[in-house]
Amino acid sequence: MADMTQTIDSLPTPALILDRAILRRNLARMSRKLSAAGVHLRPHVKTAKSLDIARMATAGHDGRITVSTLAEARYFAGGGFKDIFYAVGIVPSKLAAVTALRRTGVNLRVLTDNLVVARAIAEAARGGDDFSVLVEIDSGAGRAGLPWPELPGLLDIARVLHDAPNVDLAGVMTHGGHSYHENSAEGIARVAEQERTAVVDAATRLRAAGIPCPIVSAGSTPTTTHGRSVEGITEMRPGVYVFNDLDQVGIGSCGAGDMALSVMASVIGHYPHRNQLLIDAGALALSKDISAQEFMPRAGYGFVADPPVEELAVVACSQEHGFVGAEKPLPWAKLAIGSRLRVLPNHACITAAAYDRYHVVDSEESDGRTIVATYDRINGW
Amino acid sequence: MADMTQTIDSLPTPALILDRAILRRNLARMSRKLSAAGVHLRPHVKTAKSLDIARMATAGHDGRITVSTLAEARYFAGGGFKDIFYAVGIVPSKLAAVTALRRTGVNLRVLTDNLVVARAIAEAARGGDDFSVLVEIDSGAGRAGLPWPELPGLLDIARVLHDAPNVDLAGVMTHGGHSYHENSAEGIARVAEQERTAVVDAATRLRAAGIPCPIVSAGSTPTTTHGRSVEGITEMRPGVYVFNDLDQVGIGSCGAGDMALSVMASVIGHYPHRNQLLIDAGALALSKDISAQEFMPRAGYGFVADPPVEELAVVACSQEHGFVGAEKPLPWAKLAIGSRLRVLPNHACITAAAYDRYHVVDSEESDGRTIVATYDRINGW
Repeated sequence: MADMTQTIDSLPTPALILDRAILRRNLARMSRKLSAAGVHLRPHVKTAKSLDIARMATAGHDGRITVSTLAEARYFAGGGFKDIFYAVGIVPSKLAAVTALRRTGVNLRVLTDNLVVARAIAEAARGGDDFSVLVEIDSGAGRAGLPWPELPGLLDIARVLHDAPNVDLAGVMTHGGHSYHENSAEGIARVAEQERTAVVDAATRLRAAGIPCPIVSAGSTPTTTHGRSVEGITEMRPGVYVFNDLDQVGIGSCGAGDMALSVMASVIGHYPHRNQLLIDAGALALSKDISAQEFMPRAGYGFVADPPVEELAVVACSQEHGFVGAEKPLPWAKLAIGSRLRVLPNHACITAAAYDRYHVVDSEESDGRTIVATYDRINGW
Repeated sequence: MADMTQTIDSLPTPALILDRAILRRNLARMSRKLSAAGVHLRPHVKTAKSLDIARMATAGHDGRITVSTLAEARYFAGGGFKDIFYAVGIVPSKLAAVTALRRTGVNLRVLTDNLVVARAIAEAARGGDDFSVLVEIDSGAGRAGLPWPELPGLLDIARVLHDAPNVDLAGVMTHGGHSYHENSAEGIARVAEQERTAVVDAATRLRAAGIPCPIVSAGSTPTTTHGRSVEGITEMRPGVYVFNDLDQVGIGSCGAGDMALSVMASVIGHYPHRNQLLIDAGALALSKDISAQEFMPRAGYGFVADPPVEELAVVACSQEHGFVGAEKPLPWAKLAIGSRLRVLPNHACITAAAYDRYHVVDSEESDGRTIVATYDRINGW
């Protein structure tokens, strides 16, 4: 697949570079952690969107995964994954696509927090299609889900699904996305405990009403990393841990050496009168995600990792231009015109979405610059 | 190409919708304006990245275009365009790709503001490859270019290129990107005059030194729209005018009825306890560009245009979730679960880059919901 003699230094820029050695360490750490805890790992493959990486991530586990789009569901089903949870609220117009995939033998599970949708699923199931459905709980993130502790309508929704023919009410799930706004292990552990308490409480209420609830699903990367108890949880769905990024470093989910992904760019202009240079990676190549700035105000649109220059960051972006600057005078000789930089993404999931492939290097088994593999990605919807 | 009986209401969401009637009006307005001014139109096709749209945009003109990536250059060359200006500073490692395209009979012109690069071009040209090069001037935007009025090194760079065999020093260019931070016709006209003064001054200095300068290239969408003089300018490079967006409305480059592009999304959840709903268009489908917030603080990640609800906006985004809210209580019945919204992008160039095609409707020749065509796009690098 990859030309073993090619290095990333001969790639056209911008290009997305993945260090397999770091990826493998990240995967192994999470895999060991959940195996030791006796909890299923259902990685959220929306980060990598790659069959190669999903296979590595699920090695030694039972192959269950989480996706964020129907395009991902089709791609991973095509690659042999059989237990796929589409973890964005389903709408009736998407049920036909779900059924088409389920008929190929894939258990594509869907999600709702809405009685109208539950009734539409029950109605479609009465027509003969079968479904597997989870109910979403808002454990404090304030995104989707029935807000805990009220859980308004939980039993109504669950009963519609439980009572319908051909519908497997598979369980309950939550996403503690508010963990991204904590930056201490203590703060993240507190969110993890909210996440656990809320989703386990929802499961308990279903069971008390005589409704089975086999799956109790939780877990972002930060809460899976820093949570102190998994009691009552059956599976966890971390995603960004496969690559990590500046945002995860900023909140303390990982260390700086755990970032596997970078964007390689060329220096295209020198502007000493304003102590800046330009690179050919801008808003499209890096994304306009500024999440890491919450706890790293100088991260801009990403820190430069290679060559190592203290606090060198992409401070602004237009479509194909990245503005690189620092507080101190730039070391121009290290950053010659035409030379290459690697920028660490603020948010790996969003940055990676601009690319159709990963150029894979390995900083342990190889020299970290030779391309040892290419992994493709599924983008779009 | 398109199924004439399909409407956008049956498309999987999220989907990118283009109103051809508005597109045509935008194209006709700019085309007439530049024809009347006696200035060549070299549209920046990085916005649409579409052959269909580039052909419509250049109808009645001489077919010159501007691109922002080599992928665009190859795509538009493949579609028959012969005069293509790659308007991001070139680096030596990209010259081989430029030469490969030029050998197919395409005049792919490159850009620099750097003596090292000029020498590398001259060196490559001595090997037999021919090049057409423009020199970039910074007329005040503070991005790329030799800063005006000093124009440090202008004559050195120009002379290296002019004296090299096989090199056509085609002229000078500037991009008045600081016009995006003005929000009055007066303020934009002032930037337009800076743009004109700087680039014309650069051309004058070259000619005074005996160096020909046939092309004098300027013009963003705002400065092309509100500039009061084009004296000395030979071509203009507006880009986003083809679609317009909330940012352009905010700065006064266009009216609200001139926005041709929208993202269709489905309502996937209702959260009355916080007066919000969720749609299935988030950070990837809309982009995290917040440029329109500069002059429209409530624009969030885009206003909802359809159905019309006052100041309904995407107030937050995660990867595949858009949070929709308003100051007033939401009209829930108009925004039922499974119903569809259309969101106007903050920045059309960045939003469109997430999609591989436009679903085209026509609000004049058709009903505005029937799909009358599909236009493809070239993404990536």
